[in-house]
Amino acid sequence: MAPPIRLNAFAMNCVGHQSPGLWRHPRDRSAEYGSLAYWTELARTLERGLFDGLFLADVLGVYDVYAGSPAAALRNAAQVPLADPMLLVPAMAAVTERLGFGITCNLSYEPPYLLARRFSTLDQLTGGRVGWNIVTGYLDSAARAMGLPRQAAHDDRYDVAEEYMQVVYALWEGSWADDAVVADRARGVFVDPERVRAVRHEGPHFRLDGIHLCAPTPQRTPFLYQAGTSPKGRDFAGRHAEAVFLSGPSEAVVAPRVAALRQSLAAHGRDPGDVTVYALATVIVAGTDAAAEARLAEYRAHISDEGALTLMSGWTGVDFSRLDLDAEVRHVENDAGRSAMDNITRADPGRVWTVREVARHVGIGGIGPVFVGAPATVADALEGWIARTGVDGFNLAYAVAPESFTDAVDLLVPELQGRGRYPLASPAGTLRARLTGRSRLPASHPAASLRRG
Amino acid sequence: MAPPIRLNAFAMNCVGHQSPGLWRHPRDRSAEYGSLAYWTELARTLERGLFDGLFLADVLGVYDVYAGSPAAALRNAAQVPLADPMLLVPAMAAVTERLGFGITCNLSYEPPYLLARRFSTLDQLTGGRVGWNIVTGYLDSAARAMGLPRQAAHDDRYDVAEEYMQVVYALWEGSWADDAVVADRARGVFVDPERVRAVRHEGPHFRLDGIHLCAPTPQRTPFLYQAGTSPKGRDFAGRHAEAVFLSGPSEAVVAPRVAALRQSLAAHGRDPGDVTVYALATVIVAGTDAAAEARLAEYRAHISDEGALTLMSGWTGVDFSRLDLDAEVRHVENDAGRSAMDNITRADPGRVWTVREVARHVGIGGIGPVFVGAPATVADALEGWIARTGVDGFNLAYAVAPESFTDAVDLLVPELQGRGRYPLASPAGTLRARLTGRSRLPASHPAASLRRG
Repeated sequence: MAPPIRLNAFAMNCVGHQSPGLWRHPRDRSAEYGSLAYWTELARTLERGLFDGLFLADVLGVYDVYAGSPAAALRNAAQVPLADPMLLVPAMAAVTERLGFGITCNLSYEPPYLLARRFSTLDQLTGGRVGWNIVTGYLDSAARAMGLPRQAAHDDRYDVAEEYMQVVYALWEGSWADDAVVADRARGVFVDPERVRAVRHEGPHFRLDGIHLCAPTPQRTPFLYQAGTSPKGRDFAGRHAEAVFLSGPSEAVVAPRVAALRQSLAAHGRDPGDVTVYALATVIVAGTDAAAEARLAEYRAHISDEGALTLMSGWTGVDFSRLDLDAEVRHVENDAGRSAMDNITRADPGRVWTVREVARHVGIGGIGPVFVGAPATVADALEGWIARTGVDGFNLAYAVAPESFTDAVDLLVPELQGRGRYPLASPAGTLRARLTGRSRLPASHPAASLRRG
Repeated sequence: MAPPIRLNAFAMNCVGHQSPGLWRHPRDRSAEYGSLAYWTELARTLERGLFDGLFLADVLGVYDVYAGSPAAALRNAAQVPLADPMLLVPAMAAVTERLGFGITCNLSYEPPYLLARRFSTLDQLTGGRVGWNIVTGYLDSAARAMGLPRQAAHDDRYDVAEEYMQVVYALWEGSWADDAVVADRARGVFVDPERVRAVRHEGPHFRLDGIHLCAPTPQRTPFLYQAGTSPKGRDFAGRHAEAVFLSGPSEAVVAPRVAALRQSLAAHGRDPGDVTVYALATVIVAGTDAAAEARLAEYRAHISDEGALTLMSGWTGVDFSRLDLDAEVRHVENDAGRSAMDNITRADPGRVWTVREVARHVGIGGIGPVFVGAPATVADALEGWIARTGVDGFNLAYAVAPESFTDAVDLLVPELQGRGRYPLASPAGTLRARLTGRSRLPASHPAASLRRG
């Protein structure tokens, strides 16, 4: 029997997320992102649909590469205004029991001692349902907002990240023994001081001398997500990640990345199956193929080309405002000499895209594929992608929120269940236990070496 | 008619907070601090009692002055383990409509761009019910955990704080015009870029160049709390604070501080009444005076002297483990030459305390007074304190949680209402509006000068 298809929802604490312009759709409610009720309702929907989790994106800066200014991003609400993702989780956790939460947090600007405490706090409050999507950022605007002239070079950021992980692993895994909290009323001892030790670290980027402030939580280290596809990013994922989120428009782009990622785990002495791979996708599902196609057309009519190219410009570092909408973009390079279309055309050289096609593609759910049709049609497409790419499931972006998610829960999930490709109930326990069968990281993971003996 | 007595609840994301040892009391539930249900139940209780808010303390380090080690703090759960306070608020906000939330956040280690976003996110999600207790820390252990040899000198910390406030005010008040979000579907404009501007700051301690990431929230600048009593701290409060939390054991200690604080507001061109002063206090209320006294005796039997002196040592910088329990402590000074007993004996020279008396006093709710008795007895005491000190109300610590709060809500509040000294209903609106009648800071406040014209 084929394994179950894993589903995650993908959102952001902002308007429209990866579907720029669709905030104008009459049924889109993403502009309610500032309301707790909007998020608790979404969490209940996803829990009802037995989703693995809700994955919350984040960036710290503004998309100001397009035309060299934040104006287009603001006009189109292209991920600005953008509020903190972590603060959504406690309210959603309070109304759910099984749903996981993947939180993007840029380590470049967060002191490790404080980040470690925040994630431990959430891991405790959620009963071990929290994950960290480890990112190092890609926007120079974030660095400027933090008082730096520009962000560190890409590969240097991963060197910093490597040291950062050593520090936070030591805090999460090495400071408190599992049995440090004794809560012995008779002896008057809450914590046994012999079972807590200070973490002392002096490295090129970080120094720290102190005990972790939080007692052991269900998962200790939060479940670790990563999304990088550069060689350095893949190597980092091969060493650290328990789940990886890939985005590409086609099987031809995604399949070799999945293979390379699993090889990277093996190169780091890990089981290549010890990573859950989610591919970005958007599902537009309705009662019939025709109804779903009609809905896609209706959505497409609301895309903002300028908004989509604003996001593409931020992601790639290439100012798309300088290009004609009918220009082909395969060879356009950014200042760093990286092809702007790497993420779209690499390994799929047979297809040439125009700027307009890029905008129309990115405008619905970002760079991933859009699966459109009746439940059976979409289920066939998902099964085919899994068979041909080796991914474990999908990180579902929305076109219109929360409609894209409620449709997936109400129409796609029962279809997958009928095929025996989706769970019929969501098991209790931590996020890591649900995805890997164990609540703690295995001995093959680098965090394990920092664990107290 | 005398004005209503303001009540706040005082807690911390840890065991016992300011009542070390009382986690051993059979009814104390503070060890459930890692459960969202514990906090949402507490929030509902406080909302039912029409409290102004819940004030969450925090420290970033561990109390390791006592005997030069964190061992006593760990053994007694003296504010360790200690989780992040901010992450409790979204869940509590989701189950309440009126309750405010004061969150302690140490600015010494949080980048202002990120702190500003976190508070804006909470201000939006809570409908403007969030406050920031501005602190600069007092534990060297926090500095060491952040990779520094020790914390900056006290007065220097306030200089940094002053610049920090300029940066966050500019982000909160100056980056987005009130009407920047237009959400005009027809024109396809979500934000008018002309009404958003970058904050550019280059100072001795901070640099920043970027727009605030969040759209305008109900209060913009969160409601501002402060608790410092040093000359620098009082000057800072006089300039910035909208509410001040004072702690002293007696009217003789607290009254002159209230007067000095209000003078400090006047010195900064503000109305001396533009600050709400809460005095730390613990209320032990029962049906009769005798029943309340019996309860106090029962609580006292659970105090940990070592835990209390561990807290005192951290607060004062004096290692109380070196002193005999019967020693008098009026003149003991810490390394900085500050009297360890400043906060207890200053302006109350008639009373000499032994170390043991300090421990027994601090062990129930910290440095503030303990009001014990039937509802009428406690209400008389509160009214008397207000009349003789000029405070506006009380920040109520707990002896046993949540019992101390449920007792106050069920017994004390009706008594105060019967005297016409407490609201009969809680008005809707922002925290600032409830306390000051307006949702935005007035022109006399330094943040106003950074507002967009």
